[in-house]
Amino acid sequence: AAYAQSSVTIYGTVDAGVTKKTGTSTAIGKRDNNKLGFKGVEDLGSGLKALFQLEIRYEPDTGTIENTSGANSRPLFQGQSRVGLQGDFGTVRLGRGLTAFQESITAFEPWSGIPSVAGYQTDLQVAGYTSSPLDQTGNSANRFSNAFFYNTPVIGGVFQLNATIQAKEANGNAAVAATANSVAIPANMVPSTTPYSLSATVDNGQFAAMAAYEKNALETKLWSVAASVKPIPALKLMASYQKQDQGQTVFTNYDTKSWILGANYTVGAGKILAGYGQKTPDGVVKTKQASLGYEYNLSARTYVYLDASNKRAATTVNFYGVGIHHNF
Amino acid sequence: AAYAQSSVTIYGTVDAGVTKKTGTSTAIGKRDNNKLGFKGVEDLGSGLKALFQLEIRYEPDTGTIENTSGANSRPLFQGQSRVGLQGDFGTVRLGRGLTAFQESITAFEPWSGIPSVAGYQTDLQVAGYTSSPLDQTGNSANRFSNAFFYNTPVIGGVFQLNATIQAKEANGNAAVAATANSVAIPANMVPSTTPYSLSATVDNGQFAAMAAYEKNALETKLWSVAASVKPIPALKLMASYQKQDQGQTVFTNYDTKSWILGANYTVGAGKILAGYGQKTPDGVVKTKQASLGYEYNLSARTYVYLDASNKRAATTVNFYGVGIHHNF
Amino acid sequence: AAYAQSSVTIYGTVDAGVTKKTGTSTAIGKRDNNKLGFKGVEDLGSGLKALFQLEIRYEPDTGTIENTSGANSRPLFQGQSRVGLQGDFGTVRLGRGLTAFQESITAFEPWSGIPSVAGYQTDLQVAGYTSSPLDQTGNSANRFSNAFFYNTPVIGGVFQLNATIQAKEANGNAAVAATANSVAIPANMVPSTTPYSLSATVDNGQFAAMAAYEKNALETKLWSVAASVKPIPALKLMASYQKQDQGQTVFTNYDTKSWILGANYTVGAGKILAGYGQKTPDGVVKTKQASLGYEYNLSARTYVYLDASNKRAATTVNFYGVGIHHNF
Repeated sequence: AAYAQSSVTIYGTVDAGVTKKTGTSTAIGKRDNNKLGFKGVEDLGSGLKALFQLEIRYEPDTGTIENTSGANSRPLFQGQSRVGLQGDFGTVRLGRGLTAFQESITAFEPWSGIPSVAGYQTDLQVAGYTSSPLDQTGNSANRFSNAFFYNTPVIGGVFQLNATIQAKEANGNAAVAATANSVAIPANMVPSTTPYSLSATVDNGQFAAMAAYEKNALETKLWSVAASVKPIPALKLMASYQKQDQGQTVFTNYDTKSWILGANYTVGAGKILAGYGQKTPDGVVKTKQASLGYEYNLSARTYVYLDASNKRAATTVNFYGVGIHHNF
Repeated sequence: AAYAQSSVTIYGTVDAGVTKKTGTSTAIGKRDNNKLGFKGVEDLGSGLKALFQLEIRYEPDTGTIENTSGANSRPLFQGQSRVGLQGDFGTVRLGRGLTAFQESITAFEPWSGIPSVAGYQTDLQVAGYTSSPLDQTGNSANRFSNAFFYNTPVIGGVFQLNATIQAKEANGNAAVAATANSVAIPANMVPSTTPYSLSATVDNGQFAAMAAYEKNALETKLWSVAASVKPIPALKLMASYQKQDQGQTVFTNYDTKSWILGANYTVGAGKILAGYGQKTPDGVVKTKQASLGYEYNLSARTYVYLDASNKRAATTVNFYGVGIHHNF
Repeated sequence: AAYAQSSVTIYGTVDAGVTKKTGTSTAIGKRDNNKLGFKGVEDLGSGLKALFQLEIRYEPDTGTIENTSGANSRPLFQGQSRVGLQGDFGTVRLGRGLTAFQESITAFEPWSGIPSVAGYQTDLQVAGYTSSPLDQTGNSANRFSNAFFYNTPVIGGVFQLNATIQAKEANGNAAVAATANSVAIPANMVPSTTPYSLSATVDNGQFAAMAAYEKNALETKLWSVAASVKPIPALKLMASYQKQDQGQTVFTNYDTKSWILGANYTVGAGKILAGYGQKTPDGVVKTKQASLGYEYNLSARTYVYLDASNKRAATTVNFYGVGIHHNF
């Protein structure tokens, strides 16, 4: 028997490795997000297309849904659950997914935005900012649920605008008590404003740049600018600067600034990744992170990798990781 | 590489839209159930077939399993999880799925039984009745778990009998305290009787009718009759009447009656849906609902829609919804 | 439209039946694990392959993830979540899966290691031992999470060595209070040793044997030897002996011994399964189990079955099961 006719593409990533971090035992961990996804595109004629994507995220070392702990875990389709239309006007989608800022910034992060401890995406690259402060416990920090997503076409082959707007719906956040320096957040709070995210990207193959602005459900603001250049095809150099403003919920020292410099260098079947960055929260000790990585392609779908990083703030954490990354 | 040989059909629905209800903010919501399913049929020879179906249900706006709230959510395969055999004798299946009544009534509901707020399925169409009063919190109200399902063949091309019988297994319900007018329900209660559901349907293409009787795990009873007629191929008129009897657990005013009138009218690539109905619980204020909907087909698999409804009981709720519905 | 190109095999099992056990009502149950899996193999050239496997486990009677109860359930990919490489050196994998012992012993269990009440796998075949005493509540007892898996090639076509090593990571176990005869187990405990499992198997088609040793996260030890022989192709006779030593956490009577004798006999499209075994925990009443089963193949993928067993310890439990088992 053969597969019945349908219109679904199943895709995914399994990434597992051995990791060692200052102060913890050798562990089985991951470098990238682990995915099992279902997606499709339907041609509706006249240049119009319907599209959907559903993406499960899981932990390869334990087999659970991402970030499962007791009663809490991320959504089944943590990666995204979206449906929409694409045409001459661009792409409109509804559901849950990365915000315009979060989707655009990964091209300027030396680990391409994967959540490796050696990478910068989950902390320095976003100046400690979270896109979803009112999601359920354990949820990820870079997505909007209950959102409308719009991308313009790529204008002139180089320029694109992206916007994400979130409905003012409560989404099950836990209560956070007030502190001497911050306001209280009640449980299952309705956003105090309509959260949104805007990004503009330009990319001519050799040079790329991005500017973004985002305001989340607690009215925390995030500005970001980033650029990359390829002096030779094998080398990509990148830089970004971010600023988070928590002034709406924090009384003093509410700004956090960060910058990252990175490089990717392709040598034969291998790729070297390097980065250095700093995060400077007002009135708190600075975080400095230096990272080095290496990927060796066994095929177009599979590579083995090696990561190392040194992150200094109040304490210093060294990290080493080695593993395998397989796309299907 | 290509898909390895197998015998699974993957199918599903992604439906998301923008909704507005009296007293709440504009939200991202759904009109239909969102599905990701796996099913197959194996030919065993001599007219015998083995069949299975597993259907995930999820929320497109947040990416979670259907109805997730804290520790509670519906089963992963909320839609159904069944395996069985089909032959000259009909179809026998074991597992979880819609009861005979619930599966038969949707053909007589103007929104085809989808859970749109503008539709009637989840409230008026069933006279407020639930098929599964002893399921875990948040579970759906129209399925039997731990059940045996039997459908006769379609006799003479028009007539079919359907029966569902549930085993007397506890299924993790929460305790409900007694009130002045109702008995207490202990936690994880074993059904006080063997729940079952029966329906008879007749359908010659132009005229269809149904009669059903169901008794749930708390011995609440449901009677239902329904009919539809197509005076012209483009027009389907339908009507149904239901009565719920909660006399086993409620002391007074234990009956609820309801009736719905509906119409579907196809115009070109569009379909107009209309309905009016009333639910009359003994001794409590009547519910009156009027609804209007429109579907516009972009293809055989994809349509956009518009729904509006007005529901009056102690308070009045107006609802508007607009969105996209995509099958894959 | 047809499936887009990819490299995933979707497979699974749906098994549901009617069961009756001493002291409980007739129920809808299962005989085998119910699976929905995704797996793939990529040829990397030079005899090297990348491989992954993700296996959902679920309850067919209720549609939930396996063993769901309130906030607890088994991982989404309870069956396994592994990625690795295969070559002349054997197979290395990382993630979650059956331990070397648990994977090897099923060939010597008359029900092939399925969890039917009539089978021996979950109790007598493992002398009451659990491979994962520090996993979250409800988790299965025969897998390592956070583990490294190694299998040698099948040497000379008959001989294989298998090893599983678990990282010393906490995995969310619930606290267990001390008793007069056992130590306390704190919540979310880090393994007191590096858990590992070793097995050696030999199989020339007519004769097979296995020896295994395993030590879990609480330093409980398990020894096992097993053998099978096929005097004629239609008949397989098997025997095994196991010993569990809980001396690290239990003060007295810490050993449990067990043995099982079994037979599988193929007659036409049918197979007869038979077994008898005893489990002898020090100082506690012995368990004696006798079982008989019958499978009738409707096709290569589908069979119907009948199981019966009698299990005597402090009380006696009779079990009967009849159902359908469908692979896809």
